[in-house]
Amino acid sequence: MTDARTPDSSRRSARSRRAIHDAALALVDEVGYSRTTIEGIAARAGVGKQTIYRWWPSKAAVLMEAFLDLAQQASAEAAGAEGAEGAGGSPSGGGGGAIPDTGDLAADLRRVLRATVDEMNSPVYDGPARALAAEGIVDARVGAEFVEKLLEPQLRLYADRLRAAEAAGDLRPGLDPRIALELFVGPLTHRWLLRTLPLTHDYADAIVDYAVNGLAPRP
Amino acid sequence: MTDARTPDSSRRSARSRRAIHDAALALVDEVGYSRTTIEGIAARAGVGKQTIYRWWPSKAAVLMEAFLDLAQQASAEAAGAEGAEGAGGSPSGGGGGAIPDTGDLAADLRRVLRATVDEMNSPVYDGPARALAAEGIVDARVGAEFVEKLLEPQLRLYADRLRAAEAAGDLRPGLDPRIALELFVGPLTHRWLLRTLPLTHDYADAIVDYAVNGLAPRP
Repeated sequence: MTDARTPDSSRRSARSRRAIHDAALALVDEVGYSRTTIEGIAARAGVGKQTIYRWWPSKAAVLMEAFLDLAQQASAEAAGAEGAEGAGGSPSGGGGGAIPDTGDLAADLRRVLRATVDEMNSPVYDGPARALAAEGIVDARVGAEFVEKLLEPQLRLYADRLRAAEAAGDLRPGLDPRIALELFVGPLTHRWLLRTLPLTHDYADAIVDYAVNGLAPRP
Repeated sequence: MTDARTPDSSRRSARSRRAIHDAALALVDEVGYSRTTIEGIAARAGVGKQTIYRWWPSKAAVLMEAFLDLAQQASAEAAGAEGAEGAGGSPSGGGGGAIPDTGDLAADLRRVLRATVDEMNSPVYDGPARALAAEGIVDARVGAEFVEKLLEPQLRLYADRLRAAEAAGDLRPGLDPRIALELFVGPLTHRWLLRTLPLTHDYADAIVDYAVNGLAPRP
């Protein structure tokens, strides 16, 4: 089959996709995951239900893609807000690339955790991300898809950076990078989801210091 | 006013309270927080709605108390399962007492984190705790009550143990115990809520080692 789409129709498709993403995220934020429907998304996006079913097999699939799109935007914005520093940003930016390796593990982690804090504090991200996380917590199938498609790709970026640190002799021998990364993402996610105390850059810096240097005195 | 209740009627009250707690937890596990109602709890517990309203001002209040009761039971069971070792268990046992101080911070933390893992893996705890956590994540008011009544009292036990460690010279100077404790509860909660990888005793032990000794090599 040949692709009969003209440049104009692809532009229309891109616009429709973006409208569908925006509608899905707004709805899940307002009414929660379980009351968000394909019908509701279609009505809000001003497209037919068939348009959605042509591109996505399920509500979960629309939401995962919308969310990935959102995280990429948030990450790009956070990188933009950093000004000249530019590169980096939060790993939840999906395809958004590796954690920088300047040779200074703590500095690189501070930078990525600060960007993650900014993203978690961003209102456009917070509502839909909470709705999706809450549904994954009670519905194991949604949770598994959320973890596989959205979370694990981010965690792999931490594991990669920690493996580079290991190769450079910056990790205690025998540590498992897949466990070590949880000392960073665990505390930040805990504060964000449970809203125990403010999520700030100072907090991100403290977590990096505590985890890298440990709680026990160093000789 | 004098309390006219006889021993028989207090026994009946205790039985009714327990039936109401059980009904509330079963319902929230089955249908979720938002679809759990005082009417539904009353019907399932076999009591009148008025009985519930006499003791609790709201659905949230019944659930918080039911949950505290459940956590105490789970903690007592975990302590029982430990056999002769007895004392200790998970701090989510509410009133359930302090984290032991044997003078060995890592050993004390391993013990409490293993008990927490057992509790998180217990089916009787898992369902209602997920339902309550998920609601708190999307509803800030429920979340604040959950944190104040259930979570912070547990976290204070960690902070107390870490302050004792500080006094004993077992913490790097200048660390904030309220932040340090998040290196333990953050990763465990992350694995539990998001179901990324299995929550095991080995994992609890690794988290304690990584956090206490740090990721960077020690001279």
